[in-house]
Amino acid sequence: MSLPPITIDPKLDLVLERDIDVPVELVWRAWTTPEHLRHWFAPKPWTITSCSIDLRPGGTLDFVMRSPEGQEYPNTGCYLEVKPFERLISTDTLLGGYRPSPNPFFTAIIDLARNGEGTHYRAIAIHGDAAARQKHEEMGFHNGWGTVLTQMVEYIKAGRI
Amino acid sequence: MSLPPITIDPKLDLVLERDIDVPVELVWRAWTTPEHLRHWFAPKPWTITSCSIDLRPGGTLDFVMRSPEGQEYPNTGCYLEVKPFERLISTDTLLGGYRPSPNPFFTAIIDLARNGEGTHYRAIAIHGDAAARQKHEEMGFHNGWGTVLTQMVEYIKAGRI
Repeated sequence: MSLPPITIDPKLDLVLERDIDVPVELVWRAWTTPEHLRHWFAPKPWTITSCSIDLRPGGTLDFVMRSPEGQEYPNTGCYLEVKPFERLISTDTLLGGYRPSPNPFFTAIIDLARNGEGTHYRAIAIHGDAAARQKHEEMGFHNGWGTVLTQMVEYIKAGRI
Repeated sequence: MSLPPITIDPKLDLVLERDIDVPVELVWRAWTTPEHLRHWFAPKPWTITSCSIDLRPGGTLDFVMRSPEGQEYPNTGCYLEVKPFERLISTDTLLGGYRPSPNPFFTAIIDLARNGEGTHYRAIAIHGDAAARQKHEEMGFHNGWGTVLTQMVEYIKAGRI
């Protein structure tokens, strides 16, 4: 990879790193195609009820998560970097078109590297302060992001991409 | 220009547009070189006392403005798009490395287009809500950004770049 390294501050950021045995091209497709994302991106029994992706720097990522009780939680963010099969960066501190967001919280970096037939997968959540990091950890970052990653691998292995 | 158009909302955003008779290459250099930026980027008698630029998406823009009374105002932001001679986008909603900022306010878009020997110059400030737009307007957006643009043109015409 020739991409610049990401600066991680352990006091502010959260990292999920895992080797997965599915190819990097399918992981990329799972992350960047609305029809695929909605099948794995919410930890079951939560669901994604709608999703739209404008895959370019400044483009919008919109999705709605639905709780088992039926309550819907809309999310919106902005893509910052789109490097196919290598790096996908988005943030909820901006809306589409780089408009400042009313509820800034974190930037998400997905780094992928080919690892034999599989993928070295690293997800990083970048926060503005230790309180935001702690809140994200208490919301279940490791369990939640780990669960949906497992769901993604199962979805790919089921031949659905 | 093959760049995607910018979506401007007149209720939320502020625009300064002007034809200037200096070439696009020098305007770009004025905006992206610390030693040049500090000579024109503060409306005199304000000054820039320090400036550093890491010119890449995710890189930091840091500068300190100093009032005539000697009070210093540090500013920091993050570059989002760097398209030489065409488009420069930065935001103070993020710090370097896309870290959420403690004081998010606006995104700045500088669009340049060759216009004969000169440049069609457009600066856009993208805000999250009407209150931020109004605050920026009351801070003197049009006068301030217009003044420093005039200073930049004079700096270039004086042969300093």
